[in-house]
Amino acid sequence: MDNHARLLIEAECGNLPLLYARYSDNGDHAALARLFADDAIYVRPFEEDDPLCGRATIHAMFRDRPPTLVRHIVSNVLVEVIDEHHATGTSYLTVVSTSGGTTPPQESKALFVGECVDEFVKTSEGWKFGRRAGMIALHLGGSLPPATEGN
Amino acid sequence: MDNHARLLIEAECGNLPLLYARYSDNGDHAALARLFADDAIYVRPFEEDDPLCGRATIHAMFRDRPPTLVRHIVSNVLVEVIDEHHATGTSYLTVVSTSGGTTPPQESKALFVGECVDEFVKTSEGWKFGRRAGMIALHLGGSLPPATEGN
Amino acid sequence: MDNHARLLIEAECGNLPLLYARYSDNGDHAALARLFADDAIYVRPFEEDDPLCGRATIHAMFRDRPPTLVRHIVSNVLVEVIDEHHATGTSYLTVVSTSGGTTPPQESKALFVGECVDEFVKTSEGWKFGRRAGMIALHLGGSLPPATEGN
Repeated sequence: MDNHARLLIEAECGNLPLLYARYSDNGDHAALARLFADDAIYVRPFEEDDPLCGRATIHAMFRDRPPTLVRHIVSNVLVEVIDEHHATGTSYLTVVSTSGGTTPPQESKALFVGECVDEFVKTSEGWKFGRRAGMIALHLGGSLPPATEGN
Repeated sequence: MDNHARLLIEAECGNLPLLYARYSDNGDHAALARLFADDAIYVRPFEEDDPLCGRATIHAMFRDRPPTLVRHIVSNVLVEVIDEHHATGTSYLTVVSTSGGTTPPQESKALFVGECVDEFVKTSEGWKFGRRAGMIALHLGGSLPPATEGN
Repeated sequence: MDNHARLLIEAECGNLPLLYARYSDNGDHAALARLFADDAIYVRPFEEDDPLCGRATIHAMFRDRPPTLVRHIVSNVLVEVIDEHHATGTSYLTVVSTSGGTTPPQESKALFVGECVDEFVKTSEGWKFGRRAGMIALHLGGSLPPATEGN
């Protein structure tokens, strides 16, 4: 693969974590689900033992969550191209949110800093998440889900 | 337009929000103003009803503000190219600042997370903001301008 | 230099601050040191008068620090290509960390926002940091090293 072809794949895959944030934050769950391949796997933070399998399942999870005002700040996006149809990537996610009102602006009581590890696949619909796994590393303010407190 | 031409425009427009942050944060108001087209419109957070029209007006606003120590952390930059002379983009802005001293380092009492929605135009001087609108979604610590509190 | 060659250099150099964060945060000090040229200079925040000179010295500093759980959030990466072998860049670093346990997730008591000013050189091993200097602009919570308090 030449450098320019690689650069294009890096740009396309590198946009997926940003589009994930856009559609998570504006509540467009259908568009969010379409970022995942049909047979994608999504592993949520604190839910390593309960991966979501398949686009329809992932879509339902997003759709059925109570709406919150949230912003996913995406940074540190690094993509490594494996071949014309496969790539991997990592990115950091810094999340602020509130369970108060959904009309901005609102106060967030905490800031969570985590990481996503992604596998990208080129499908007939373009590059998609083949697998996405998220985890939380540090938080400022707030507290973690009870099950993980003290871990 | 071929993919490489598109990639170049995305890179050039995608740098504008970062240059906005650089010149805002180092107080280079002339350079900051030159990021805007002559007839650009700038809509500030909490001032939707009072858009600034034209580069000279925008320049004056930046220049005449009291100096503060501030950092505009830019992320989630997504650019969509419309044609050789037009593009749109969105980005997130996370802002820390102090009204205390202007010599770093200083303590910020709050962190604001917002968004910019941009229209880019290619002028004889290169790509510029044709329109920029900012809004705040969430904050950690601190408080919002009195007029918006409770909204 | 044509636009595509420049874009490739920008992408390669622009990844170095992200790789710096990756290897800092996962504790891979050998890989971290390899991001620096053999004769690189690294100027740490609050240590302007004590630059680290040379890859081996930089490696030893990273290796001999007590391990901490830390995340370096990199944003605002701007690269300016000088020629085929030289480029400069700036980026913002937002750092959360804990001196508590090293197993995530943990609580960070503070968030530091700073900046890096980089010189990149193309070596026989590819693009490297020729010089990197970090400084802190603002912090949320926590306190600064005693020597700098009150500055």
